[in-house]
Amino acid sequence: MLRLPSTTFKSLFKRASSTPDTPETVRNVQGWVKSVRVLKNLAFVDLQDGTTPHAVKLVVRRGGQAPGANQARSVLQLKTGQSVCVDSAVWTRTVGRQQLFELRASEDAVRVIGDVPATYALQKKAHSLAFLRANPVVKHRSNYLGALLRFRSQVELTLAQFMDDHDCTKVAPPVLTSGDCEGAGELFAVDSRYFGSKTYLTVSTQLHLEVLAAALNRCWTLSPCFRAETSDTNRHLAEFWMLEAELCFVDRVWDLTVFAEAMLKRVVGMCVARQNELLPLLVPAEHSDFDDAATVQERWNSLLQRKWPRITYTHAVELLTQQHATQPFQFVPNWGQDLQSEHEKWLASHFASPVFITDYPRECKAFYMKLNADKRTVACFDLIVPQMGELIGGSVREDNYDALVQEMTRRGMNAGDLEWYLALRQNGSVPHGGFGLGMERLVSWLFGAHNIRDAIPFYRTAGGSIQM
Amino acid sequence: MLRLPSTTFKSLFKRASSTPDTPETVRNVQGWVKSVRVLKNLAFVDLQDGTTPHAVKLVVRRGGQAPGANQARSVLQLKTGQSVCVDSAVWTRTVGRQQLFELRASEDAVRVIGDVPATYALQKKAHSLAFLRANPVVKHRSNYLGALLRFRSQVELTLAQFMDDHDCTKVAPPVLTSGDCEGAGELFAVDSRYFGSKTYLTVSTQLHLEVLAAALNRCWTLSPCFRAETSDTNRHLAEFWMLEAELCFVDRVWDLTVFAEAMLKRVVGMCVARQNELLPLLVPAEHSDFDDAATVQERWNSLLQRKWPRITYTHAVELLTQQHATQPFQFVPNWGQDLQSEHEKWLASHFASPVFITDYPRECKAFYMKLNADKRTVACFDLIVPQMGELIGGSVREDNYDALVQEMTRRGMNAGDLEWYLALRQNGSVPHGGFGLGMERLVSWLFGAHNIRDAIPFYRTAGGSIQM
Repeated sequence: MLRLPSTTFKSLFKRASSTPDTPETVRNVQGWVKSVRVLKNLAFVDLQDGTTPHAVKLVVRRGGQAPGANQARSVLQLKTGQSVCVDSAVWTRTVGRQQLFELRASEDAVRVIGDVPATYALQKKAHSLAFLRANPVVKHRSNYLGALLRFRSQVELTLAQFMDDHDCTKVAPPVLTSGDCEGAGELFAVDSRYFGSKTYLTVSTQLHLEVLAAALNRCWTLSPCFRAETSDTNRHLAEFWMLEAELCFVDRVWDLTVFAEAMLKRVVGMCVARQNELLPLLVPAEHSDFDDAATVQERWNSLLQRKWPRITYTHAVELLTQQHATQPFQFVPNWGQDLQSEHEKWLASHFASPVFITDYPRECKAFYMKLNADKRTVACFDLIVPQMGELIGGSVREDNYDALVQEMTRRGMNAGDLEWYLALRQNGSVPHGGFGLGMERLVSWLFGAHNIRDAIPFYRTAGGSIQM
Repeated sequence: MLRLPSTTFKSLFKRASSTPDTPETVRNVQGWVKSVRVLKNLAFVDLQDGTTPHAVKLVVRRGGQAPGANQARSVLQLKTGQSVCVDSAVWTRTVGRQQLFELRASEDAVRVIGDVPATYALQKKAHSLAFLRANPVVKHRSNYLGALLRFRSQVELTLAQFMDDHDCTKVAPPVLTSGDCEGAGELFAVDSRYFGSKTYLTVSTQLHLEVLAAALNRCWTLSPCFRAETSDTNRHLAEFWMLEAELCFVDRVWDLTVFAEAMLKRVVGMCVARQNELLPLLVPAEHSDFDDAATVQERWNSLLQRKWPRITYTHAVELLTQQHATQPFQFVPNWGQDLQSEHEKWLASHFASPVFITDYPRECKAFYMKLNADKRTVACFDLIVPQMGELIGGSVREDNYDALVQEMTRRGMNAGDLEWYLALRQNGSVPHGGFGLGMERLVSWLFGAHNIRDAIPFYRTAGGSIQM
């Protein structure tokens, strides 16, 4: 392990939990003041450094030598938000509570590095998420949003390891593309003078991933995607990150759902194993914006307890129709029409589990999906999860050249625009399929955050102008 | 480990090297035909599946039962590029050469899944990289470019693990931004009607990373960046991926170079440990486009052998001036001017090692770099590597509000545009620094590929219109 001049709090806690409980001098402990409580002979200062939700508890013995020019003349002057350096301290631990070890220092060992104005936005009290969103320069220093960022980081690493364990190669498909993968018409155009041809930001890397899967067998990416959505809800972002995977030699939706379930359960397993380190210790002021820790932990545990149900779209519509007869939805469930958000949420809540809904009507889905034998439905799935709704969408792809051209023609698409994509079906074509997972949706669902704006450091949404 | 219906070749080889050498039946082996050689009673078919550079050697016993409708009526009809399924085969191994195990199957066990046209681009012979680039739909199936993609994937995973080991949180800063981080004027504009304000694609995530580092202590990202470069060289891309890291409580360039060196040595260590799996077995036709395996392996070993030198820019200019006196460069080395590519390459070759060049003149570098005590140079570094030139650029950042505003004013910048960035210096500011590493440059340098276009699956460059 590399030794940098500063020590992270995470590594301090790690050392504290693995070394014998003898006093030890640590130097150069640097962080930000979370709270200060000054008594006559002692002061208690909580420090944070953003590598762990836990604070370092600093016990300062008051009245030291005459302070130098850069030293806090008194802990009385310490304020929430200041950055400080503790030149030297002795650590001690409370027996049986290893996480809550203390640093004991003298007053002259505590130096202020960077001050804060009297108007510093993050005071000791809990703020609402709305307040934090309005203060993007400091919002990530709150215990809750800091924990959310660290959580996302661990989720991403776990996914990368899962993919590597399953021989999936990570690839970097282009963000700048020539066309619209889905025909959804929600494209951002880029000034095209540079390339001399129409250029857009990608809405999905799937088509390029298919090219790469035909060379690598299994591949995946974690890449920003862009949709000029008009929906301004707590589940939509104009710029979001998508994990997409494409697997060759897969011809059944079933296999894709098995893969997706194993992948997500690996992530949840990591969450359960490391919950003390991942969950926030302090939460925002408005409890309607997030689930509390007990609810989140209960969700994690319940996700691992059983195999998640798979039902067909047709069966889903039957269930919805029965429900509608007793307790009407706003939208009547109708075979052939896409499921509404209220339908998805009811289904997930009915099963009290993530549910794979498979085999949607072909008219509800994109042109590249493999037609089932019934000619009415396609070999696809959506993973619907409680609270959130759709988390993953995937399908087996049409790997037959003639069938794909026919479907494109039927939809009035110009096959010439996707010649390269069609060429895959003429050059050693294989059955294959894949899926796309919205990273911010996954992170906010697992973390219990109700608005995916908080799952990305700086959100871009419909109607919100970009200030930084 | 999850069992999908197909077996990757990588996992087949892994099993073969860890199980006793007894014949075993394997089913459903699927891949693409690399080469076919037919003898009277036997045929030898090399299969690839893109998860490893190694081919599965298939020995087909000719003359089986009457073939079914979808079966290759004869191995005589097998062609390079076709996808095939071997329904059942028995594996055997050549003693002492575990990687070269064989599958033995009867002729009727081999089924063609997807055919190729007679014009299939990738024939058995070696192609040039120029030819492969012109065939983007199939180029990644070549042994060399396939190996390059797998190599990049392992490099990325190793970097992610290194960052996690050092308590760096992975973050997702925005791609859509309001301004130009560096003032370099090479921005791609995005249709701004959606956000109602000027919107660009990011050239560097650094400024946003600084906000996040002030909350997380250490953070990093791997994110696409965009520069409307006019340079059309083998080292420039309009869309590239950059690893950027930002570390708090760092006030010396030295510490940043130690971190960067440890990070890259971790990657090289992985390369050495896994070279048999990472290096290509077949190389393109034109040897001027890449280094051969022996050269690459020698490079990896030599990189680990010693500490990489650090020299100041001022010292570098002295060395260059001496060299210029005996063997003139095209550009005269001159203190105060940026180093030219030829200078960088000479320095790296002179030291026969990556070299950190530190403390450049302030006028050569960006506004946010920390001014040194001499008031003429800034606390920054470039890492220069043989063959490639600049691989990493980094610096300590100016963390003092007044000094930063003064420097922006001196440069004629509008401080109002970066109010949020300046606010960091007023709210618990700490010494911090970081760096940016071009992922494609790292990958092509380590892999010995001379053109970074090959280190990204689909390249976007000046003057190249986007076809897919």
